[in-house]
Amino acid sequence: MESSTEVLQKKMFKQSEFYVGLSLALSSSVFIGSSFIIKKLSLMRLSLKGSLRAGAGGFGYLKDWMWWLGFLTMAIGELANFGAYAFAPASLVTPLGALSVLVSAILASKFLKENLNIPGKLGCVLCIVGSTVMVIHAPKEEQMESMDEFVNKFRDPTFLNYILMVITVVFAILVYIGPRYGNRYVIVYVTLCSAIGSVTVMACKGLGLAIKDILYSSSVKSTTIWILLGLILTIAVCICVQMSYLNRVLDLFNTNVVTPIYYVIFTTMVITASAILFKEWQTMESQDIVGATCGFLVTIVAIFLLNSFKENSLQASKQNFNSIYFS
Amino acid sequence: MESSTEVLQKKMFKQSEFYVGLSLALSSSVFIGSSFIIKKLSLMRLSLKGSLRAGAGGFGYLKDWMWWLGFLTMAIGELANFGAYAFAPASLVTPLGALSVLVSAILASKFLKENLNIPGKLGCVLCIVGSTVMVIHAPKEEQMESMDEFVNKFRDPTFLNYILMVITVVFAILVYIGPRYGNRYVIVYVTLCSAIGSVTVMACKGLGLAIKDILYSSSVKSTTIWILLGLILTIAVCICVQMSYLNRVLDLFNTNVVTPIYYVIFTTMVITASAILFKEWQTMESQDIVGATCGFLVTIVAIFLLNSFKENSLQASKQNFNSIYFS
Repeated sequence: MESSTEVLQKKMFKQSEFYVGLSLALSSSVFIGSSFIIKKLSLMRLSLKGSLRAGAGGFGYLKDWMWWLGFLTMAIGELANFGAYAFAPASLVTPLGALSVLVSAILASKFLKENLNIPGKLGCVLCIVGSTVMVIHAPKEEQMESMDEFVNKFRDPTFLNYILMVITVVFAILVYIGPRYGNRYVIVYVTLCSAIGSVTVMACKGLGLAIKDILYSSSVKSTTIWILLGLILTIAVCICVQMSYLNRVLDLFNTNVVTPIYYVIFTTMVITASAILFKEWQTMESQDIVGATCGFLVTIVAIFLLNSFKENSLQASKQNFNSIYFS
Repeated sequence: MESSTEVLQKKMFKQSEFYVGLSLALSSSVFIGSSFIIKKLSLMRLSLKGSLRAGAGGFGYLKDWMWWLGFLTMAIGELANFGAYAFAPASLVTPLGALSVLVSAILASKFLKENLNIPGKLGCVLCIVGSTVMVIHAPKEEQMESMDEFVNKFRDPTFLNYILMVITVVFAILVYIGPRYGNRYVIVYVTLCSAIGSVTVMACKGLGLAIKDILYSSSVKSTTIWILLGLILTIAVCICVQMSYLNRVLDLFNTNVVTPIYYVIFTTMVITASAILFKEWQTMESQDIVGATCGFLVTIVAIFLLNSFKENSLQASKQNFNSIYFS
């Protein structure tokens, strides 16, 4: 039996973990937001030089120092992001990614000469406001504390169905839909990245728990090591595929078009996956569920505003954008 | 001493009062939202007929049945609104007036043939989302329960200063600013209406308390009667002035321009006045203050979106609108 002091200490420890996770999530947004712009700058420079474009399957960007700077910035951001997932609920960390769009928009208006007009400014305000509302209503304590719990959850048939669905979607896009429609519709490869991304996030949460288990316990079970290696492998493969297709999408379409769609699809998939795996929503009060949903909706509108009313530099993207939103 | 059961009962009674107030506020928004459109339709009809326009000081609208229908709808809405103020905090009821803008926008797109475009639709979503967030974070219990408390608060020097400031602003506009700039800048008479409106709201809260006092107590003090009459007189005068100048503004400028500015100025003034008089914010948790502010900001953006990106029917208003927002 725990004494009430112990329970209180545990509660406070959990709450401080939440704020560590929150700070990591916020700083990761700054890095990831900048990385988008640095990479885009690099790809624009390369396409001016006449190298084979990433969208056409070229890998010329691998020789550019600026692309690697973008890669490094993103790596730092993703590392902070990984830390955030280890300490705070996924249903909070992923939607807060919106702030990276805010950072992107401000930097894009500065370095890519993309004009931040009135709707864009309203989007900035809403992005901050929506994120604040989400933070207020996010579950403050993690539901899952050990590796064993995590492994048990993986046997949940609903989650297995989710994984099966992801695999089906990924193969359908890679084999059939991608080659036919991938260059015309931004949503194709964005869905691919999002589906794989949601698996990455779940694996990251698991990895975080495994690392915590190893750090806090005196003896390490051999299964923990195997699971650890399995998770690292999963994450590595997922990230490689994700990165490669995200580059392709970013080169084919305007950032303004890619970002809001990626945000909505990716976040929705992560929330779905973590609702199934971690049951994060089950212990929330109905008021907080409504509040968090409202915050998410505000952020979606914010990202739409931040991106959709800009003058696009590429006419091709603009047409595509019109066909997505207005038809 | 009250027993814990009595305290609990009282708490539940107060909470049910909150929901009565909330329902009244919501239904009042529907009526007031419709009344705006009906009145505008009437004034448009009259200006086509060539009657002297309200903006030029004409009172031709008093002979039009449709104007009176609009008046009736507004009266019902204001009555429900008055009831709402008696049961729920002013800091909640006033911002919820945003929903009347939502109703207005939908009806305007239907009857005034004003196109509800993509920003308008986003505005509708945000309007509902922002209001929901405000309801979640609104103080659920009234701080003031009797006439005596209300009268005592009136002796608060900060509140007397507020009233003095309102009187100064009103006279400055009536005597000096109005005749010179009133026909050119929408903000002039909107500020007048808002300043007087905030006094109306405070008087309505007082009237509600006085009526409750009379209904619940066996003997009525003579001072209560005098205060009651004083409040009714104040409300009557305030509403007449408000209505007259609101008509003038609506005839001179497009609804799209008047509504968002009126909403922001009026709500801010009511929140200020009730923060001073009722100290509604003092007992709120910091989290709820942040949440309510976020909700208010979302609603402001919503109302801006609902109104500002429409194609305006009157070129004059459009120029004026441009000079307000973009200069």
